[in-house]
Amino acid sequence: MIEGLLTKLREKKPLVHHITNMVTVNDCANVTLAIGALPVMAHALEEVEEMARAAQALVLNIGTLSRQQVDAMILAGKAANSLGIPVILDPVGAGATALRSRSAERILDEVRVSVIKGNSAEIGILAGKGGRIRGVESEEAAGDMVEAAAELAHRYGAVVAVSGAKDIITDGERIAFVDNGHPMMGTITGTGCMLSSVVASFCGVEKDGFCAALAAFVCFGLAGELAAARPETKGPASFKTAFFDEIYNLTEEKINSGKKITRQ
Amino acid sequence: MIEGLLTKLREKKPLVHHITNMVTVNDCANVTLAIGALPVMAHALEEVEEMARAAQALVLNIGTLSRQQVDAMILAGKAANSLGIPVILDPVGAGATALRSRSAERILDEVRVSVIKGNSAEIGILAGKGGRIRGVESEEAAGDMVEAAAELAHRYGAVVAVSGAKDIITDGERIAFVDNGHPMMGTITGTGCMLSSVVASFCGVEKDGFCAALAAFVCFGLAGELAAARPETKGPASFKTAFFDEIYNLTEEKINSGKKITRQ
Amino acid sequence: MIEGLLTKLREKKPLVHHITNMVTVNDCANVTLAIGALPVMAHALEEVEEMARAAQALVLNIGTLSRQQVDAMILAGKAANSLGIPVILDPVGAGATALRSRSAERILDEVRVSVIKGNSAEIGILAGKGGRIRGVESEEAAGDMVEAAAELAHRYGAVVAVSGAKDIITDGERIAFVDNGHPMMGTITGTGCMLSSVVASFCGVEKDGFCAALAAFVCFGLAGELAAARPETKGPASFKTAFFDEIYNLTEEKINSGKKITRQ
Repeated sequence: MIEGLLTKLREKKPLVHHITNMVTVNDCANVTLAIGALPVMAHALEEVEEMARAAQALVLNIGTLSRQQVDAMILAGKAANSLGIPVILDPVGAGATALRSRSAERILDEVRVSVIKGNSAEIGILAGKGGRIRGVESEEAAGDMVEAAAELAHRYGAVVAVSGAKDIITDGERIAFVDNGHPMMGTITGTGCMLSSVVASFCGVEKDGFCAALAAFVCFGLAGELAAARPETKGPASFKTAFFDEIYNLTEEKINSGKKITRQ
Repeated sequence: MIEGLLTKLREKKPLVHHITNMVTVNDCANVTLAIGALPVMAHALEEVEEMARAAQALVLNIGTLSRQQVDAMILAGKAANSLGIPVILDPVGAGATALRSRSAERILDEVRVSVIKGNSAEIGILAGKGGRIRGVESEEAAGDMVEAAAELAHRYGAVVAVSGAKDIITDGERIAFVDNGHPMMGTITGTGCMLSSVVASFCGVEKDGFCAALAAFVCFGLAGELAAARPETKGPASFKTAFFDEIYNLTEEKINSGKKITRQ
Repeated sequence: MIEGLLTKLREKKPLVHHITNMVTVNDCANVTLAIGALPVMAHALEEVEEMARAAQALVLNIGTLSRQQVDAMILAGKAANSLGIPVILDPVGAGATALRSRSAERILDEVRVSVIKGNSAEIGILAGKGGRIRGVESEEAAGDMVEAAAELAHRYGAVVAVSGAKDIITDGERIAFVDNGHPMMGTITGTGCMLSSVVASFCGVEKDGFCAALAAFVCFGLAGELAAARPETKGPASFKTAFFDEIYNLTEEKINSGKKITRQ
């Protein structure tokens, strides 16, 4: 299902246009390079459509949104839609403020999104199933996250990918769980944003967003496990260094032997 | 005086809302996580009040300010004030341009600030005692920094914390000096900003800003010493990695045996 | 030709004002410190002239430009021009969108630029000699890059410095090639931006932009080679750490024995 995707990604080097937050933008660029794709960040209203049309995937991340930035996201998203370029939405902090919830919904209403990637609170809140978020961190999830994710997937015709101890990926019909990952990933900022960049990188070479997201979650979580096991890892910053290195050093073999996917 | 504060911080995980500069924002988020708190960055006028009200501390850092960002800071600051949430001001580059000096003063006039954290030039200049700044680096301090800090503390009813070879912390009555720290901390950008995030993290669990700032300065400086002594440290970047790791790995025991506080 | 320049830089610690992109701004600040200069980032219209006048060099980098930011660049550039402070332009992504090409040309028309530093696609496109860029990465260069660089140098009376496997530096009369560097430098984002910061740091102490750029390219590439050879380097992130450390640890002796310059 995900076999060969990393190889394809590294051959095609898809260009991933990001309109994203200022906190983790450098990490998003570096993780995109590490997985094998090509990042570009551009947010000016005057250029986002042109940049989106030149890309193979578009990431919209509302982590430090402004009204004008959301306008740019919608322009870029529509341009991407017009050419069938996949759009990945990371609704960072949806539920934490009205602006974030409304902006995520506005994007979903106006842009055809291929993959919505969020934590359990963000997805639960967008699905209308509840959840509680503190800043941008999930504190409490909806009772049944699988149901919430599937409902959101149906509503927008999108793949919904929920990061957590056990990740959930669904297009409303197919459901997969990914058990890869490590608690050290929660000690650094931006792992959620970076994961969205990796999802977008795979979407740039794989039309089936379900498979693309699955590959991304496995790669990302597996790299986290490998990095946590490295002797150099003595805290969050050395973990982060090892994590980027492990993403760069992933191979089909490592993925094949390390992936922890269960299907429902 | 500072005993048990790190433990309390890690239990309560205060949410620290930052309105900050684009240069060091990622480091500020990561240092907030490393010390044990929870960072969130939000600067849109439409959401800053809501985010500030949900937080346990608010950092205002003018490192790459714009007029609109200062407006957002004041909105957020007033919202924090209305709920008694501590506000920490980092007047980055005050004195370097008129905009920075005026903006720092405007914030201090309109928002009740708990802790003003700056380098000696910034504090001396805000206190009207002179000093010279080059970019954002202190080049020359006021003649008597303790007097300058105390006067500024009195004027605004705030704790004033001055970073330097010997740090000064005062609320105008109490004065403490912290000797922790290492010259390697000056080889990377953003240590000042990060320190403000750590001060805010402690303010999120300790109402007495004097104690909170003291704990933060000790922890920060001590982690710098420990990082500089690590065999992996071969320059500024490996020092930085070790520094974040050491902040994450701080314990009450390390603080107790490593703190270098003198009182006047 | 470049002997003694690093020593001079570290003695004088020139202040380098950056108006730059949000992706690599932290790296630019840290690399400026690592080479021995002092970075400051300021982009508000109200303060850029004052900050530029206080600096010894000004970097204009359009990596995540907006119309307002370009306005600020022109204000700052003119202020720098009025005092003879060197201006370094990094036309990131020129050719990728009309906004980027037009903005680079607008800056070149309104500001006297000392050094234009770009990759081969950016320089070829600005010279009107063709080239193809994907996001911000050069995909195809003009047929004769030396000619393109020299023509651009003549047109604007600037030094043109082209990064690539073999770097080209020319003021239209003198031409030098630098062979220092390592492919690992392409695995992290921002090496182009960082190189511009290093060029600006040298311009802050050396009026001849040709020599300043030459010194910067040699130092930067040499540090990349040394970092790639380090046993700790296991991927892009550990390479990056080693790279910053090696820049910090450069000496005149290392430069003298490691420089790979050829002249035409």
